[in-house]
Amino acid sequence: MKNYLKHHEWQIIEEGLNPHYNRISESVFSIGNGRMGQRATFEEDYSGETHQGSYVAGIYYPDKTRVGWWKNGYPEYFAKVLNAPSWIDIKVTIGDVKLDLAKCSLENFTRVLDMKTGVLHRSFSATLVDGKKVKVDAKRFCSMADGEVGAIRYAITPLNFSCKASFTLAADADVVNKDSNYDEKFWEEVSKEANLGWMVLVAQTKKTLFQVCTGIEYTFESEGKKTKGKVFTNTREKYVDNVVEYELQEGIELVIYKYATVLSSENHPKDKLIKNCIKKLDHTKAQGFDKLLVDHAKVWEEKWKACDIIIEGDIAAQQGIRFNIFQMMQTYTGADERLNIGPKGFTGEKYGGSTYWDTEAYCLPFYLGTSDPSIARNLLIYRYKHLPKAIENAQKLGFTDGAAFYPFVTMNGEECHNEWEITFEEIHRTSAMVYAMRDYIDYTGDKNYLAEFGLEVLIGISRFWAQRVNWSADKGKYVILGVTGPNEYENNVNNNWYTNYLGAWTLRFTQDAISHVKATDVGRYNEIVAKTSFKEVEETAKWKDISDKMYYGEDKARGVFLQQDGFLDKELIPVSQLRPQDRPLNQKWSWDRILRSCYIKQADVLQCMYLFEEDFTVEQIKRNFDFYEPMTVHESSLSPCVHVILASKIGYKEKAYEFYLRTARLDLDDYNNDTEDGCHITSMAGTWMSVVKGFGGMKVKDGKLHFAPYIPEQWKSYSFNLEFRGRVINVKVSKDKTETKLASGEPLEIVMDGKQLALA
Amino acid sequence: MKNYLKHHEWQIIEEGLNPHYNRISESVFSIGNGRMGQRATFEEDYSGETHQGSYVAGIYYPDKTRVGWWKNGYPEYFAKVLNAPSWIDIKVTIGDVKLDLAKCSLENFTRVLDMKTGVLHRSFSATLVDGKKVKVDAKRFCSMADGEVGAIRYAITPLNFSCKASFTLAADADVVNKDSNYDEKFWEEVSKEANLGWMVLVAQTKKTLFQVCTGIEYTFESEGKKTKGKVFTNTREKYVDNVVEYELQEGIELVIYKYATVLSSENHPKDKLIKNCIKKLDHTKAQGFDKLLVDHAKVWEEKWKACDIIIEGDIAAQQGIRFNIFQMMQTYTGADERLNIGPKGFTGEKYGGSTYWDTEAYCLPFYLGTSDPSIARNLLIYRYKHLPKAIENAQKLGFTDGAAFYPFVTMNGEECHNEWEITFEEIHRTSAMVYAMRDYIDYTGDKNYLAEFGLEVLIGISRFWAQRVNWSADKGKYVILGVTGPNEYENNVNNNWYTNYLGAWTLRFTQDAISHVKATDVGRYNEIVAKTSFKEVEETAKWKDISDKMYYGEDKARGVFLQQDGFLDKELIPVSQLRPQDRPLNQKWSWDRILRSCYIKQADVLQCMYLFEEDFTVEQIKRNFDFYEPMTVHESSLSPCVHVILASKIGYKEKAYEFYLRTARLDLDDYNNDTEDGCHITSMAGTWMSVVKGFGGMKVKDGKLHFAPYIPEQWKSYSFNLEFRGRVINVKVSKDKTETKLASGEPLEIVMDGKQLALA
Repeated sequence: MKNYLKHHEWQIIEEGLNPHYNRISESVFSIGNGRMGQRATFEEDYSGETHQGSYVAGIYYPDKTRVGWWKNGYPEYFAKVLNAPSWIDIKVTIGDVKLDLAKCSLENFTRVLDMKTGVLHRSFSATLVDGKKVKVDAKRFCSMADGEVGAIRYAITPLNFSCKASFTLAADADVVNKDSNYDEKFWEEVSKEANLGWMVLVAQTKKTLFQVCTGIEYTFESEGKKTKGKVFTNTREKYVDNVVEYELQEGIELVIYKYATVLSSENHPKDKLIKNCIKKLDHTKAQGFDKLLVDHAKVWEEKWKACDIIIEGDIAAQQGIRFNIFQMMQTYTGADERLNIGPKGFTGEKYGGSTYWDTEAYCLPFYLGTSDPSIARNLLIYRYKHLPKAIENAQKLGFTDGAAFYPFVTMNGEECHNEWEITFEEIHRTSAMVYAMRDYIDYTGDKNYLAEFGLEVLIGISRFWAQRVNWSADKGKYVILGVTGPNEYENNVNNNWYTNYLGAWTLRFTQDAISHVKATDVGRYNEIVAKTSFKEVEETAKWKDISDKMYYGEDKARGVFLQQDGFLDKELIPVSQLRPQDRPLNQKWSWDRILRSCYIKQADVLQCMYLFEEDFTVEQIKRNFDFYEPMTVHESSLSPCVHVILASKIGYKEKAYEFYLRTARLDLDDYNNDTEDGCHITSMAGTWMSVVKGFGGMKVKDGKLHFAPYIPEQWKSYSFNLEFRGRVINVKVSKDKTETKLASGEPLEIVMDGKQLALA
Repeated sequence: MKNYLKHHEWQIIEEGLNPHYNRISESVFSIGNGRMGQRATFEEDYSGETHQGSYVAGIYYPDKTRVGWWKNGYPEYFAKVLNAPSWIDIKVTIGDVKLDLAKCSLENFTRVLDMKTGVLHRSFSATLVDGKKVKVDAKRFCSMADGEVGAIRYAITPLNFSCKASFTLAADADVVNKDSNYDEKFWEEVSKEANLGWMVLVAQTKKTLFQVCTGIEYTFESEGKKTKGKVFTNTREKYVDNVVEYELQEGIELVIYKYATVLSSENHPKDKLIKNCIKKLDHTKAQGFDKLLVDHAKVWEEKWKACDIIIEGDIAAQQGIRFNIFQMMQTYTGADERLNIGPKGFTGEKYGGSTYWDTEAYCLPFYLGTSDPSIARNLLIYRYKHLPKAIENAQKLGFTDGAAFYPFVTMNGEECHNEWEITFEEIHRTSAMVYAMRDYIDYTGDKNYLAEFGLEVLIGISRFWAQRVNWSADKGKYVILGVTGPNEYENNVNNNWYTNYLGAWTLRFTQDAISHVKATDVGRYNEIVAKTSFKEVEETAKWKDISDKMYYGEDKARGVFLQQDGFLDKELIPVSQLRPQDRPLNQKWSWDRILRSCYIKQADVLQCMYLFEEDFTVEQIKRNFDFYEPMTVHESSLSPCVHVILASKIGYKEKAYEFYLRTARLDLDDYNNDTEDGCHITSMAGTWMSVVKGFGGMKVKDGKLHFAPYIPEQWKSYSFNLEFRGRVINVKVSKDKTETKLASGEPLEIVMDGKQLALA
């Protein structure tokens, strides 16, 4: 855990450069707009620890992966999130000396991410090796008003000299991916054009042939007027620049505005990329930095109106929750139904792929509660569109008759992750899509979704479960063998309780959905029957038999459900007894030691109790929480939020708050020692859930919104808005009271602490 | 299963070229001499299916392996068996047409491997596209008399023309490894010299920097006299040749003798490689092909005297057993204690590494029974020398205090395989080394081995087990969690019965060894105590507790031991009910489907019953055999031989014979559809065991040799020699009687069918 960032309500602040933490800061201070994003690397040269990263949504590379052994059904590739061509470079040479922050003496360095307006701001004074001293003030943003635009204002003032300086403004596709398996570079040049004053570079990914066109224009200003230097251009393979030689005058600020337009072949025909890029580039430059910034900030203002959570009396918590909401909003805007929420967003390369079960299990509730229902619906339809691929995935593994097995990680519906213990065995993810449907319908009331899209998916997934279980003659029950549950610190176990529960529940949910669609839209029902060759009587009979006779492991003496068969054979030693030097386990212990230990990466049995809270008594939840939580290391960022919600439910308020801090400030404080690889974007939705579902006790039951709020001791008050069925409801919880207002929309009856409450 | 090779007592014969099976033949017809070896690829060009493979013992490449995810303790590399520089090429061009057997019309093609003399012989008549017809007769061998020498006699006769021909005789290090992860080539050129008449090429492996120096000389003869052509030389990166242009005369045979000397930096200082190579080359050429062949054949004659098994009345079985013995003998001669028995020997690249548990569990008994005890002892000492590395391996995985964990696959003592489910979890292999000690001591009576080398290894391995088990409060027993047993179609299971048994036995064996060394050589004992910081009282108390309270799964109703916890949850469907198109499972089913099925790759519970036969009643063995064998797919080549021995023991004679054919002719008939990748060398020792231990009922009990022979119905008689404590014993089993003779050595009392028998 680190604590080098200053607490502030609306800003993330680093005062003084922390070279050892620079890669962490680069992740934390990242900016994006749903279409493109950028780690907080410097515009200038930097020879210290850094990890340059520019990203364009939807662009990936299917890197082939090979191990000593290959087994049938292994995916062919691992989809890498690609480091895209960089548009931020402004390399500075003063006299003969490069401005390199690792080689200067620095004063007043600050890096500030203003979350209210989505702007990264950096300033410092640097004394170069030859004694020359400059002051720099740099701002940049990726425009929320136009997802293809980035802008930089780079101001430099010579403090104790006048001399010639040169500024290299580049577009550079000669970039590396940190996690390239064999130091391979993934971009090839298509074309480049370097003119005096502007340049355009088109690069293409190998294999996938995505093209990204980066256009750069710029202006120089001094003392409020445009000014010019002597310009040269350089090109090399995958690189174009303009070098501007300029006579700096002591005490006089030079301001460089760099405008970038980044167009992807996902949104433009390849043969129109350059034309469209230049057009947008001219328009962007014509608007100018200040106008672009105003438009950008306006979008953020609207977003914050809808989704802000205000915490009074605890700046660290306030900063944490806003940081999480900010990242969610700049990663996925819901504007493009082909996109999804990558686990690192635009903050790093790690994890690859764009879509995990995180989307359904964690992100969906966030977007349901903060945004128009169409955004959550888009997320569901994304999976509907992948149904044929999910059926193919299942076929590759030997399943038949239209069984659908959704991938663990995907870009286009195909599995693109390749640890067998995950891709083959972490099968519960395929039902996260089912749970998301239930969540969406409960929340929005839009039950028509089942007939329109849902039922086809449900039939496919239920077929998968029906083939995946087997009858155990020994137990006289259906069992599910060889799985990995949400707790990935167990692999290839039998009868993971969460998986068995979710599988059986899915089969029941599908049967209900069939009844509903049949009753409300028999025409569409028959269409689906024909399309899926559904044998209703036979298949539903089988599904009923399985869901009725599913095996659930239990320790009756302790009154707990068993995470999996054999769990009680382990040495059950609480995490509190581990030596500090053993943590985090995934960095300190070998894999086999983790596997045979009792330690739980993230909620597993408890994940089920969170999802199906209504199926269990508070006593049951308490017993299982008391048993499993002490063995949980929370080394998945998805873990703490579930614990906040359950701890709140069973009255463990202090524990809940402790977990909350952990999820809310996971990346700000680098709890898991891995923020340098990027932020944990999808789990950030969990932070929002922690407040709204945890402290606020929000849930939807029988179509009604319920709250059971309490306030952490450390806070004075907190308040949040909630989108719900056409209304916006504002809830403010203080020490002594809860105020609930209908901010917009029709009157509504809700349930507050178990009592009906009419909002008008 | 294929059946294209002709049955013959001493030869493997292919009549007519089978292009689709060519890669299988290349494996089967491989030749070697313990130091170098060669797949049966053609000297000429061949544009059909082929897999060129030349191998030099001890030369490997640590190919880095990367997957999407890396976990702590994963080995850094996968050791590839390297395809070494080729010395066999004699490319032929007649007029303008290349001799390419894929593009000719062929008559009388035969490929013969003469096992008696270790010579590969190939002859054919080929009609080229332009109608020219030639007859070719090619022989080659890797000299058993000098492990660095290979020789080829290539005779070509123009049948219907006279014309100019050119012959390209090359040394070529520009070779590929079929299983290179990224199409990388692993050799770099050090130097080359191409003269008229001879050439030398030194190539070096990347990373490991092994050097191999290949020297080539040759002579041309016609009508019994030396002759010459016009010679050119060509060189390119990693390649040298001589091109000899020669006027072929219709009906007159031209004989080319090509001599190769292949020296490795493992046996020569790098700066002497070329000098030593040239010296040997001159000497080799001076001796000439016929003399080299005589010396080579003489070595084979001696070997066959010691280890031949003669089967009368069944040519297929005779051919099978000799093929297995032949391959064992040409793979490992015991001459170099740094070498071991690679699973593919010199017949292919697959599997990587050189040393598996196959050596101890399968190969050792073969060498004990057929060779001087020093060879088996060398195999034990090989592991003794790796003890420090085994301790390091254990440390990498978090074990402490001198625990030793031997690698699953190794070249130099380090783990070089990288599936976690194997390297971390297939822990039983570390006790195969212990079992090998017992086997060696039982067989040779050399109990001093314990004091000299054994006990240090035993203490390390026992420490490993003591840390690897854990106490299950639930079971009130010690359990072993997260393992893979010999049956690799199960991964990460708990309480694999074989592993638990072997672990507990190891702890007991070590305690016995301590008592023995203490009683017989207390000085050495104290030395070992000091060297290993052994805390006798404390450590042995713990070991005793564990071995006394180990958990063994059992199904009391069925009277069988449980392969692992939860085995009875599976659908227990016999292999006989699988559809033919599902076999072999490892080529047809996805990995997860295999894992959750009941199917057993190779003996697992039964492997234990084979190793510890004396611990179980015939009834117990029968019940377990009847339960597990029908679910066994024998997709490991190590499986059938164990079943021959157990089936023999329990009187299942027909089944025993069926399994025998499967092991004896595994590669000849390509049972598992994978011989094209190389032969299953280590399992070939199992074939020998099938006859001697299975049909012959040989075992050593209390220092005495026991036999309980029977004869398969299909055979007239079989006989074998056995090396045992300074004697050679010959056993001949016929339908009506068994004759046992002392072929050499002091008188000896043995036990035949339970009765004492004095041999003099």
